[in-house]
Amino acid sequence: MRGEIINVGTEILIGDILNSNAQYISRELSRIGISIYYHTTVGDNPTRLQQVLQQAKERSDLVVLTGGLGPTQDDLTKESVAELFGLDMILHEESKVKIQGFFQRISAEMTQNNLKQAYMPEGARIIPNDNGTAPGILLEKDNKIFILLPGPPRELIPMFRDFCIPYLQDKSPIKFYSRYYKISGLGESALEDRLLDIIDGQTNPTIATYAKPGEVMLRITANGNTSEEATKLLDEMDHQVMDRIGSWVYAKEDLSLHEVVASMLMEKDCSISVAESCTGGLIAAKLTEIPGISSIFHSGIVCYSNASKSDYLGVKEETLEKYGAVSRECAMEMLAGLLKNNKTKIAVATTGIAGPGGGSEEKPVGLVFVGIAYKGKMEVHEVRLHGNRQQIQERSANMAFNMVRKMLEND
Amino acid sequence: MRGEIINVGTEILIGDILNSNAQYISRELSRIGISIYYHTTVGDNPTRLQQVLQQAKERSDLVVLTGGLGPTQDDLTKESVAELFGLDMILHEESKVKIQGFFQRISAEMTQNNLKQAYMPEGARIIPNDNGTAPGILLEKDNKIFILLPGPPRELIPMFRDFCIPYLQDKSPIKFYSRYYKISGLGESALEDRLLDIIDGQTNPTIATYAKPGEVMLRITANGNTSEEATKLLDEMDHQVMDRIGSWVYAKEDLSLHEVVASMLMEKDCSISVAESCTGGLIAAKLTEIPGISSIFHSGIVCYSNASKSDYLGVKEETLEKYGAVSRECAMEMLAGLLKNNKTKIAVATTGIAGPGGGSEEKPVGLVFVGIAYKGKMEVHEVRLHGNRQQIQERSANMAFNMVRKMLEND
Repeated sequence: MRGEIINVGTEILIGDILNSNAQYISRELSRIGISIYYHTTVGDNPTRLQQVLQQAKERSDLVVLTGGLGPTQDDLTKESVAELFGLDMILHEESKVKIQGFFQRISAEMTQNNLKQAYMPEGARIIPNDNGTAPGILLEKDNKIFILLPGPPRELIPMFRDFCIPYLQDKSPIKFYSRYYKISGLGESALEDRLLDIIDGQTNPTIATYAKPGEVMLRITANGNTSEEATKLLDEMDHQVMDRIGSWVYAKEDLSLHEVVASMLMEKDCSISVAESCTGGLIAAKLTEIPGISSIFHSGIVCYSNASKSDYLGVKEETLEKYGAVSRECAMEMLAGLLKNNKTKIAVATTGIAGPGGGSEEKPVGLVFVGIAYKGKMEVHEVRLHGNRQQIQERSANMAFNMVRKMLEND
Repeated sequence: MRGEIINVGTEILIGDILNSNAQYISRELSRIGISIYYHTTVGDNPTRLQQVLQQAKERSDLVVLTGGLGPTQDDLTKESVAELFGLDMILHEESKVKIQGFFQRISAEMTQNNLKQAYMPEGARIIPNDNGTAPGILLEKDNKIFILLPGPPRELIPMFRDFCIPYLQDKSPIKFYSRYYKISGLGESALEDRLLDIIDGQTNPTIATYAKPGEVMLRITANGNTSEEATKLLDEMDHQVMDRIGSWVYAKEDLSLHEVVASMLMEKDCSISVAESCTGGLIAAKLTEIPGISSIFHSGIVCYSNASKSDYLGVKEETLEKYGAVSRECAMEMLAGLLKNNKTKIAVATTGIAGPGGGSEEKPVGLVFVGIAYKGKMEVHEVRLHGNRQQIQERSANMAFNMVRKMLEND
């Protein structure tokens, strides 16, 4: 199936909005074996939109449109698609009731133009929108599939994931299934090295890697005539992959490392405190992104200055003088300082040189000590990280989370 | 001038890469008065790329292409544009020498295919690339301007900003100039309310607002036949705008609020400590994004639990029991705790309910106390913020930074 994506909206063309929908839809369609040949963005202009639609109908089997479904006169997408196929616009009663209900719920007055959103091209199907007033549209006609979705990602993503993907999967005799592996502590190229022969020889399943600072995602996609066939292929590949990189896999779904660690901590009711020098509060900020973390997150000390290391953690002046703040010895005293008040089960400490300044030959930018203490054990790892200031901070924080994960796993 | 953007790369079509270049280029061109009518992404396929180029040449005056300038056989952009205009590819000696020098500098061997990057269509100009090996290309022919840039943003952005924008500005008899105003403490709609008559009546200068959580940017763009003419219009508008919203403007360039505050603190050599409950380390993390902040950032206490508020800041148990952790009284004791060791000039404290859980009728989600102490003065502001957990944390942190800014400004 040949597909293309059309994003409608002048706000994208003047650079007000980053077009993240095109990426999301492309990734999801590629996962179920549909190839996308073009992305086009066009403004809220009837003539240009009609030309773009005409061209798409000629060259593609599947056209996914985003934007232009709102209540204003500028919103033209539905009407333009109806015109393209020579269809009338008809009122969809159920959508009308739903839109009226929405305005009642938020105690706002519904103006007449909001009813525009309840009209659809004759013969189309409604894609329910649980997060906004504009329903999506699915039109199958002349051997073409046109899918129309609202622009805001928080409306579009659940509609696409829960309705469009299953619908498109049903259309195809071949089924595609994917598994995700989230990896920490192993870079993208080191990961590819370990899987090189699998990657080079890939046919079915296919295998792909995606990198972000401090973490890598691996996707394996298999296809078959039945789900059993595809599952069998995925299971076989899973064994091979886990044999080689299993100890770096922290989740088999698309979660961030700190989300996984926070869940583990809350599940085990295991309290944590952190002392952060080079990460400057990043570990605490990531933990406190998670709702409910207050049950186990005791305290975070951002001890950026030497004085605060002494004041709040009791790091000795001799230690700072003899070994410096960026040292294994300092990291150990930071951990001891957190443990002293006896109210935390796990203690984590970071100290390092995030740059760009502050490095020396002996202690270059990127030198970082990450320490963890748990049940009487204390470990401090020394690493030399690459990247700019932000990347070094991000990688140090992820390294700390990974150490907590391993410690809890082996508990 | 009618423009369009073409992004070349299969990696965009399968969703591996977010197309941020299209947004960047659109925003910059719109700033100098060039309208963009289409964005198109096409893969590394010679037939489809040639069709897209042909269409663009027919309908646009300016075509900006990104990607496909690398050394591999997949990189087709230059060759396809040469074919479109019927031009030969010729070797650019200076680029050849530069590419050889690059490989010498990084002590890597240059393979023969890297020389492909030194070829260009006959009659084109080279756009220097200081951050990579692929030079850009500017071709003016048949009354059309084609600009070819490499895909990586850190190469593309300086090339576009320093070479293409001045070049395009020179082509136009009318000059466009912009000024930026960064605003904190005033939402986008409240800002628009205050400027409504100016926004509605805009012709020259034009005025536009861009919102992010916790801050808003205002852009004013004027055009004229000379820079003096445009500057005069900008100055007049500047007076009007500053009269109405001056006290919320924290910078007249595109800087984040925490960058401005960090600069102020470092300039005044004014030390700061923060005690964060609901912001959970976000203020500390933002401060420590800034290189050199260690000279003035003393310490951050992330006191997420009641116990840590007592342990590290001396908040009294009676206070927590009587008023609760989310209270003006607790915020004041947090400030007092930071000041007690007498090593910080400014103290900042946040306590609130970021949600989604933990709210009550009396203390709903979004209730936040932000406190600041400086030179014997202590202020605690109570606010009710809207949004999800992340937005409430982000807005609370920005509110704290804005209070520091005002305190230092009135110092």
